[in-house]
Amino acid sequence: MAGKFQVRFMPDNRSAIVEKGTSLAEAARQADVFVKNLCGGEGVCGQCRVKILSGKVETDENAKAFFSQEELDAGYVLACQAKVEEELEVLIPPETRMEDAKIMVSEAGDKGLQTVPIVRKIYMSLPPPTIDDNISDIARISRELRKRLGWHSYEISLSCLRRLSEKLRESQFKVTASVAKDKNRYKILRIDQGDTSQNTYGLAVDVGTTTVVAQLVEMGSGRILGVAGIPNQQASFGEDVISRTIYACKEGGLNPVHEAVIKNINELVHQLTSEKGISPQDIIAIVAAGNTTMSHLLLGLLPCSIRLEPYVPTADVYPQIFAREIGIEINPEGILETLPTVSSYVGGDIVAGVLACGISESPHVQALIDIGTNGEIAIGNLDWLVCCSASAGPAFEGGGTRCGMRATKGAIEKVIISQGQVSYQTIGNAKPRGICGSGLIDCMYELVKNKIILPDGKFNLDNNDPRIQVVDEIPSYIIVPGKESATWILGSLLSRL
Amino acid sequence: MAGKFQVRFMPDNRSAIVEKGTSLAEAARQADVFVKNLCGGEGVCGQCRVKILSGKVETDENAKAFFSQEELDAGYVLACQAKVEEELEVLIPPETRMEDAKIMVSEAGDKGLQTVPIVRKIYMSLPPPTIDDNISDIARISRELRKRLGWHSYEISLSCLRRLSEKLRESQFKVTASVAKDKNRYKILRIDQGDTSQNTYGLAVDVGTTTVVAQLVEMGSGRILGVAGIPNQQASFGEDVISRTIYACKEGGLNPVHEAVIKNINELVHQLTSEKGISPQDIIAIVAAGNTTMSHLLLGLLPCSIRLEPYVPTADVYPQIFAREIGIEINPEGILETLPTVSSYVGGDIVAGVLACGISESPHVQALIDIGTNGEIAIGNLDWLVCCSASAGPAFEGGGTRCGMRATKGAIEKVIISQGQVSYQTIGNAKPRGICGSGLIDCMYELVKNKIILPDGKFNLDNNDPRIQVVDEIPSYIIVPGKESATWILGSLLSRL
Repeated sequence: MAGKFQVRFMPDNRSAIVEKGTSLAEAARQADVFVKNLCGGEGVCGQCRVKILSGKVETDENAKAFFSQEELDAGYVLACQAKVEEELEVLIPPETRMEDAKIMVSEAGDKGLQTVPIVRKIYMSLPPPTIDDNISDIARISRELRKRLGWHSYEISLSCLRRLSEKLRESQFKVTASVAKDKNRYKILRIDQGDTSQNTYGLAVDVGTTTVVAQLVEMGSGRILGVAGIPNQQASFGEDVISRTIYACKEGGLNPVHEAVIKNINELVHQLTSEKGISPQDIIAIVAAGNTTMSHLLLGLLPCSIRLEPYVPTADVYPQIFAREIGIEINPEGILETLPTVSSYVGGDIVAGVLACGISESPHVQALIDIGTNGEIAIGNLDWLVCCSASAGPAFEGGGTRCGMRATKGAIEKVIISQGQVSYQTIGNAKPRGICGSGLIDCMYELVKNKIILPDGKFNLDNNDPRIQVVDEIPSYIIVPGKESATWILGSLLSRL
Repeated sequence: MAGKFQVRFMPDNRSAIVEKGTSLAEAARQADVFVKNLCGGEGVCGQCRVKILSGKVETDENAKAFFSQEELDAGYVLACQAKVEEELEVLIPPETRMEDAKIMVSEAGDKGLQTVPIVRKIYMSLPPPTIDDNISDIARISRELRKRLGWHSYEISLSCLRRLSEKLRESQFKVTASVAKDKNRYKILRIDQGDTSQNTYGLAVDVGTTTVVAQLVEMGSGRILGVAGIPNQQASFGEDVISRTIYACKEGGLNPVHEAVIKNINELVHQLTSEKGISPQDIIAIVAAGNTTMSHLLLGLLPCSIRLEPYVPTADVYPQIFAREIGIEINPEGILETLPTVSSYVGGDIVAGVLACGISESPHVQALIDIGTNGEIAIGNLDWLVCCSASAGPAFEGGGTRCGMRATKGAIEKVIISQGQVSYQTIGNAKPRGICGSGLIDCMYELVKNKIILPDGKFNLDNNDPRIQVVDEIPSYIIVPGKESATWILGSLLSRL
């Protein structure tokens, strides 16, 4: 007995009309409502708890293990394992929502880029052709570009050649050429009438597993005009890379995951350009960096073999494409360059970090530690570089830590221990609900500084600190006593470090 | 008072429904009926004579000068200057039609190409990845290509990378890569599962002003499988390059002229592939050569400045494009390479001729004479080359010769003069109506051989040949006496040589 039913999600009051049998997680995606999801819809993480306010769902028996009898009686189900039976009203409780996530972005600064921009706009006032100088229009442009940018072969697309003759003559041969560098090639992207060299903007995008951050850059000067970050919308297909890979490799799974991050980037383009009063058309280039799986999903490449032994990506060096090819709404001739990958688990993000820090140009051995959802450590100098990586974020954010949580409202983000007294700060100054990555690192630092943890990595059980407790034979340190909210036990984290 | 009317063209019995005020020439184009047109619709060549069988047209006063009073009374008008007033039936008389044109195509032969094909299909059975050899999928393919085709950087498009991972694993890493050479670049066009290297076909297209000829080539062996030629459909916009340029440079004029030759090429693709029982999908490359204006119109580039001092084309070297970009229906990843142009009036056709004859590789000075609608002469050797060009075809085909005509039914195509006796042959063995280019060259040769024309280029008026006559002070030679059909007078041609 087929049929379509409306599912309304509270407190957002958004709804979707879906086929009978659709999972609540899928219905939420269609209603554009975020539901936490660590395992990619496998029914094993228990993070997608929702409460049925009215109506009936078909539930999986195994899913009941995630709830107490009171919760089951109150109507709690796992969104990924509950199927729509009739018209529904569903509450997404706070712990399942993506609340005002705190995203760390560095300040927009004035630091000039030391490098040559990937797209340059060159204004040229060309000598009009005469009978003694009647080379072709494009040869005239190339001749000028060679004077300005060096002796290269300048490629031009057919669309760029069309109407070129008219453009040149209408503007008395005063035009601006936008020239992109693509590996060793030079490509003329656009030829515009008059001097448009002032309006050249680029976007640097960090495609993080959890967060997508973009900087708006004035390409001529390298000045950073603005920066913005938003949660990676792919999270609704799984919070970590592995869950998303599994989702993307299901029949029909790749496109939704691919499109989610494109939506992110378009949102950032819109946000940054409207803030600065410029048009998305003025953005002529995007440089994106992400881990190997993120780069694959950004470009719509299958990430499946990255996850499985022997861990092979489709590509390590990605083609420079027109941003429009994947639906990014900037200048129609604007390009997208995706930073190359070293291997399946050392991606373009760490390549970007190494480049930006100058490690690979220094004679001194230096290290770069990038703790994101995936963490990498690169060590080396101008002669050699080694790098390793491991899943880092989920260990901090609830995937593996008993009291860990994402950096949302109520997460402890700062900890100070002084003479046995603990003070802390939570995101949004809310009552503490858990501890996020920044809080954990702060806490570790303070524990070591105060000799509560000794150089061997073990708790100093001899100092009789009442905050050190042994629970289930695992030593723990109490940051917030139960009466202030609940009992935080660090042991489960520490036993893993 | 607007309205739409049907215009029916006889003897083809094809019709079009057009707005009131549309010219008959335009209506004929819409009905896909060929109407001769030397001047591009300017009303000055008088070649587009048609006869109104029923209905009324609005005519231009100046156009009447092209007709006798009898013709005007019989309903003759110029198609380009007559506008539809109501429902019409129009006769296209024989002299205005494109009749069974004779197109000279060389025989399909077995001569192997000495050069490397522009697209090569490489079948490769790759070693599957292991934990010790886990480079990316595309790096694995490039590594093999470097062994087979040399150490190049192999570019790959995004569409080609998509699903690559799946393709490789489904086929146990046995795939065929189609690799195109584009100037100094190597581009992977397609990666197909299994061994598809047998089905590699290319098309060599001569985009002539009058005729479009294509050879179907088996790319692996260089074997020519078939050849076909059809009249260039652009002729309905003007027979010579100048008229077509004028038409294309009118508002909205470029696209119809561009699309006409695309239609030609698609027709040739269809004809040759169905003849040989292969699919248009099996054609992976087209190499096209034409004069500079033809190359511009093929690619949809404005040819306007080619015609005007200082005679500047938009491009001399054309980008290699996907054939689909201009609507050519071969393999969707198939490419179109357009041979480069030397200048506005020395085009890719003469470049192709020089390359094919090997002039530029020989120490001996040689000459290439290409008499087409536009004629070029190139002289040189491996050290130097000079070339000049002039309009040639129209001078032979009615544009400038009193008795000249296109190579259609009734045209004298062979002339033999022996001991004062003249024998000739016409196309279709019809009664002689004029003389075409081949006939004129034959005739010139015979006149010189028989010393009727002397080495100084003048008639030998002393030999009392009764066929030499002086008409309007211009000496002429009678090939066919009036009683056999009409009087052919060569003088007007000779006075131009």
